[in-house]
Amino acid sequence: MSARRPPIVGRYTAEEVELATRNHGMPLEALRYDVTPAGLHYLLIHFDIPPSDEGWSLGIGGLVERPFSLSVAELRSEDSLTIRATLECAGNGRGQISPRYPSVPWLEEGVSTAEWTGVPLARLLQRARLRDGVKEIVFHGADRGFDHGLEHDFARSLPLHEAMREEVLVAHAMNRAPLPPQHGAPLRLVVPRWYGMASVKWLRAIEATERPFDGFQQAVAYRFRRAQGEKGEPCSLMRVNSLMAPPGIPDFYTRRRIVQAGEVEISGRTWSGSAPVERVEFAVDGKWTNAVVAKPQAPNAWQSWHTVWQARVGENELACRATDSGGNVQPLDPVWDLSGFGNNAVQRIFVTVRG
Amino acid sequence: MSARRPPIVGRYTAEEVELATRNHGMPLEALRYDVTPAGLHYLLIHFDIPPSDEGWSLGIGGLVERPFSLSVAELRSEDSLTIRATLECAGNGRGQISPRYPSVPWLEEGVSTAEWTGVPLARLLQRARLRDGVKEIVFHGADRGFDHGLEHDFARSLPLHEAMREEVLVAHAMNRAPLPPQHGAPLRLVVPRWYGMASVKWLRAIEATERPFDGFQQAVAYRFRRAQGEKGEPCSLMRVNSLMAPPGIPDFYTRRRIVQAGEVEISGRTWSGSAPVERVEFAVDGKWTNAVVAKPQAPNAWQSWHTVWQARVGENELACRATDSGGNVQPLDPVWDLSGFGNNAVQRIFVTVRG
Repeated sequence: MSARRPPIVGRYTAEEVELATRNHGMPLEALRYDVTPAGLHYLLIHFDIPPSDEGWSLGIGGLVERPFSLSVAELRSEDSLTIRATLECAGNGRGQISPRYPSVPWLEEGVSTAEWTGVPLARLLQRARLRDGVKEIVFHGADRGFDHGLEHDFARSLPLHEAMREEVLVAHAMNRAPLPPQHGAPLRLVVPRWYGMASVKWLRAIEATERPFDGFQQAVAYRFRRAQGEKGEPCSLMRVNSLMAPPGIPDFYTRRRIVQAGEVEISGRTWSGSAPVERVEFAVDGKWTNAVVAKPQAPNAWQSWHTVWQARVGENELACRATDSGGNVQPLDPVWDLSGFGNNAVQRIFVTVRG
Repeated sequence: MSARRPPIVGRYTAEEVELATRNHGMPLEALRYDVTPAGLHYLLIHFDIPPSDEGWSLGIGGLVERPFSLSVAELRSEDSLTIRATLECAGNGRGQISPRYPSVPWLEEGVSTAEWTGVPLARLLQRARLRDGVKEIVFHGADRGFDHGLEHDFARSLPLHEAMREEVLVAHAMNRAPLPPQHGAPLRLVVPRWYGMASVKWLRAIEATERPFDGFQQAVAYRFRRAQGEKGEPCSLMRVNSLMAPPGIPDFYTRRRIVQAGEVEISGRTWSGSAPVERVEFAVDGKWTNAVVAKPQAPNAWQSWHTVWQARVGENELACRATDSGGNVQPLDPVWDLSGFGNNAVQRIFVTVRG
């Protein structure tokens, strides 16, 4: 329960291993699916998965004219919208940075795409009639615990204009089935384009406020900082990123890849919270060529990319790098962040090609 | 691809972390479910999840009079059986042993219970008409890779009398839905009571043989050994074991528990491959008392247990220990095994009780 956790260098702690096996990634071969099957979707559960009891209701209140609450059945009976959205953990890639912030040691697999069905948040806010002066909407989850010595329910806010985006949902289904417990059953928020921390799970209450939310997960965690003590900038839109499905077959322990010489199909996914991806480059031992990037399959979902690699016998390092239409490009090496947030450095895969 | 991996002492390697995030455990609060939701069921995928292509068929051959093959649709159209079975990874608990075998660093969460639906294997073997002299049935999966320098498909065998047990299934559904990719889609074997390695996923072929199967996963891996070079004894039935759902609320990073003083409900699950569990003991700081153990909910599934703890302000170590009707009891400390198999030492949970 100590208030500060010293950074880690080198091998991983038992706490990191326990967090990794609870908060699992998406195995990279699952990049083959346009929509990630529910059990393969990455997970970040800050505390415990709360029980999803019978009497669950969602309250909507704060600075509104008509506060109300909805049962899960009432929410399910409303006209719904289904949105295909890619979500990525803000800490994805943290495990590759040194020194390392003590938290989930994501290597690069903390990203997935699902179809979320629910009611647009804007419709619920309109029904509640926001009063003048509302600046933020706060979302309260049912998951409770300690972090840095502070006891709290997981809670986050969105600026009002973000909360009113038509694709922000109060979701009750994932991939056309009721939400599984680990993805927020019975109700969760889904905020496409933003890092995953904004998509509050086990949603209990929505609150309109006139002042910026100062809860731990908003004001302390999930901020980009270069050094301890800085106020930092909030994590928000997902940075441009790309991954390839590792080619060939793996070694069990090292996960190093073994590939047959000749033409090898390389494919993967790319995404950016701020703009469509326009370009993906593929590199063999540092020599970059352009891959083919597909148009977005849906406005908030990752794009496919592919290329063909003429693999020759030997040892190779493969890499991929995306550029979005806003001109944002993945860095070759991690950009330093104290908590390991926003690491969108290019993926590197080591491959042995045999004849 | 080296043939031997040196044992590990102390902190965990990047390879172990990558294996942990791919091969995730069951978060222990999910002990609350009689049947583990599919996405929370523990996973061990030796290589990559293979694509589940349209033309998948299962061949049944070897030392039989009438070899045949079945499409997935044909198998789904047969009379089926649904069995509730607890499966546990043979390596569960490996991460708590020192020195540590380089593999998935399970702490204690590599166990779950699901409902599997499929066709009894015995029925398929009878249809194929086993010839005289058949001693083993070999199961070939579609997942391929290297381990200890050897390239192979994952394959395992069962002695004939085990294969003919009525509850051994060729399963096409999990928890009343088609198998998810990560659990063996479209077809897998389910061998209740045995450690999970026997339940071959992505099942492609079943082969009757007159000699003991000498594949890597049978003759080299999954054997209890005290020292390098020993032939060892094969892993088979799950050893007696028990877990409790950690009480109270957690600290995010350490997962240490914080509990309010007073009456605390403690509950968990217990299982043994060889016999029903007759007794579960619960300990606070090493003082053991009997908990209440429920009768089995199904012949091959874990049993519930519960007790009440009068929690007083301070720091406590909780533990639980099961004894089955065969007199097998969990050890207080891990029993040494070179590969970290069969570690059924008692679970210990550290709790801070506050007033």
